[in-house]
Amino acid sequence: MYKIGIVDTTFSRVDMAKIVVEEIKNNLPNARIIRYTVPGIKDIPVAAKKLIEEYGCDIVITLGWVGKTQTDKYSYLASSMGIILVQLLTNKHVIDVTVHEDESSDEKELVQIAIDRARKHAHNLIALLKGGETLSRWAGKGRRQGRPDVGPLET
Amino acid sequence: MYKIGIVDTTFSRVDMAKIVVEEIKNNLPNARIIRYTVPGIKDIPVAAKKLIEEYGCDIVITLGWVGKTQTDKYSYLASSMGIILVQLLTNKHVIDVTVHEDESSDEKELVQIAIDRARKHAHNLIALLKGGETLSRWAGKGRRQGRPDVGPLET
Amino acid sequence: MYKIGIVDTTFSRVDMAKIVVEEIKNNLPNARIIRYTVPGIKDIPVAAKKLIEEYGCDIVITLGWVGKTQTDKYSYLASSMGIILVQLLTNKHVIDVTVHEDESSDEKELVQIAIDRARKHAHNLIALLKGGETLSRWAGKGRRQGRPDVGPLET
Amino acid sequence: MYKIGIVDTTFSRVDMAKIVVEEIKNNLPNARIIRYTVPGIKDIPVAAKKLIEEYGCDIVITLGWVGKTQTDKYSYLASSMGIILVQLLTNKHVIDVTVHEDESSDEKELVQIAIDRARKHAHNLIALLKGGETLSRWAGKGRRQGRPDVGPLET
Amino acid sequence: MYKIGIVDTTFSRVDMAKIVVEEIKNNLPNARIIRYTVPGIKDIPVAAKKLIEEYGCDIVITLGWVGKTQTDKYSYLASSMGIILVQLLTNKHVIDVTVHEDESSDEKELVQIAIDRARKHAHNLIALLKGGETLSRWAGKGRRQGRPDVGPLET
Repeated sequence: MYKIGIVDTTFSRVDMAKIVVEEIKNNLPNARIIRYTVPGIKDIPVAAKKLIEEYGCDIVITLGWVGKTQTDKYSYLASSMGIILVQLLTNKHVIDVTVHEDESSDEKELVQIAIDRARKHAHNLIALLKGGETLSRWAGKGRRQGRPDVGPLET
Repeated sequence: MYKIGIVDTTFSRVDMAKIVVEEIKNNLPNARIIRYTVPGIKDIPVAAKKLIEEYGCDIVITLGWVGKTQTDKYSYLASSMGIILVQLLTNKHVIDVTVHEDESSDEKELVQIAIDRARKHAHNLIALLKGGETLSRWAGKGRRQGRPDVGPLET
Repeated sequence: MYKIGIVDTTFSRVDMAKIVVEEIKNNLPNARIIRYTVPGIKDIPVAAKKLIEEYGCDIVITLGWVGKTQTDKYSYLASSMGIILVQLLTNKHVIDVTVHEDESSDEKELVQIAIDRARKHAHNLIALLKGGETLSRWAGKGRRQGRPDVGPLET
Repeated sequence: MYKIGIVDTTFSRVDMAKIVVEEIKNNLPNARIIRYTVPGIKDIPVAAKKLIEEYGCDIVITLGWVGKTQTDKYSYLASSMGIILVQLLTNKHVIDVTVHEDESSDEKELVQIAIDRARKHAHNLIALLKGGETLSRWAGKGRRQGRPDVGPLET
Repeated sequence: MYKIGIVDTTFSRVDMAKIVVEEIKNNLPNARIIRYTVPGIKDIPVAAKKLIEEYGCDIVITLGWVGKTQTDKYSYLASSMGIILVQLLTNKHVIDVTVHEDESSDEKELVQIAIDRARKHAHNLIALLKGGETLSRWAGKGRRQGRPDVGPLET
């Protein structure tokens, strides 16, 4: 039985955890899901680390939301490096889902990006639990989360 | 009884610690508060780490103030990464409050941002002490500190 | 017998691992190759570390693909720092191959860059396995991967 | 008796260590001062760490000088992160003084910035040696080093 | 007898190691020099760490070459942070020499920058081997590598 951690934020404008929980329940009905909600993206790394080390999660998915300013981008960079560091300190995957407010000026589209990205990365999480070659048949195939796949370039 | 650390700076132009102390005293009257004041944001990470490791704090809130230049932004990035690293080395939350001078050209508004952000993050600190699901009912709700909440997007 | 790890992504639009596998098989027919496919570049560092620590790889090559936006560049920076950190934590080389979508607006040229870069870095990997002076006769010679060599400047 | 480390550089155009030594001798006549001079800012972090770990310093002040180009700014960022990391690895303060050549186009003013900043941060160092609440009466007071204090905002 | 490590790259367009070897042989004829050549700057940090930990080097000099694009600058930043981290993990100096292609549009001048910088930093390396105060008489003197010294500002 897998233990799967979800970290999300109160800053986010879409409840992406709901989508992730749905996908996990449909695909891994026996998995135990542990949720941890923090204020914003800079609080995510330690929550992910605690889910792995204190709650015994096998893998974590983090659901961040990033504002439009340059300061927000620097926060994104710091947070991204923190999430990578959590993985290197635990040897566990932490799938880092982020939605950036500058990805679309249309709020409806932003919602669709968030939902699609969370759903597809939930599937990536499930694949990674099965081992490092599970996604290999899709390697180089131009898959995208939040947008339709762009596909491979012609070689 | 919780031990709560506050790190603030002499560079800041608003005494945000006063707000944080008020909120903690009103909500957690038995908590012990330990304050540590440093010159500027790059001095914050080690002070937060010392509060956790040498003073036994359960959680820390840091109150930074960031100037307007690009150099200040790089200092913000270095400091943010340091604060994330403190959390990963201690498995404790450090709520990182920062006010950026470029957030408003109006000094009165900047004061209001600082006070509102410090107060709301003091509440976030109290919530996180109660566990990782305390804030989950607000997940994806578009909460903001320093400004009014923007709320969730319609899905 | 060497164990060589390959990390690639489903985000990439060219199957660079195929090129790398060809070059290794031609030059080190007894090497064992272990492949690990992840969604995107921020997932690469932990996969590389797992290949070294859990699968016993002597060296790893990572095959990343980077989008055009500033956010993608920050992800590149975080990923690059992660890959360097993996090397410092394991004292093994991880050859970090990345193709950036802004390197060419012509898709055919981008494919050629990807193939050439993957192939030449596979050769660099093989050279580094033989020791730190193997590449010394090419030091300062202006070698390029993805493009033709520019050669040394006249001194 | 305190041991205080000073790291400075040959790149700097002002001998800031002289100012720092004066202030320490006037205020802590029994302190032992150990100086370590390196070429430039990227050499500073390890020198600070050696002063703490190999020479037993209780605290260190570093005196950096940063050029005008974007490359210099990235070196500043890397150096800042290194100095923060030294502090997290040793739980000692390292007061990071830097003068940026783009702070003034007037060389005389740049000299005044350097001298004022070094002097005021020497006082900050002395205060931090006395404990984390020594500077608390100045918290939020808008103190500046290199320039006159701007003072607190009206609340 | 000192052991001195040199890391250089095949990406570089000038054989800077030759200059460094000359200077070391002239000034420290008994030193043992160990060379390690890697493809590019992101491969430098682990090579420097291996020279210190596996080959027993007392100090290392790294000779990097950085392209003109923004991506190259991010690679420079990641590499710089890696080289600083190597120093903090080993408490040894790693003198980080880099030539940036945007330092001059004239190829002859770029060669002169590379040669001058490598030569002067070889002298810095020799000085640092003698202890942390060897360079103190030059502190604040505005020394430059790659260009003529600018000298101290008038105080």
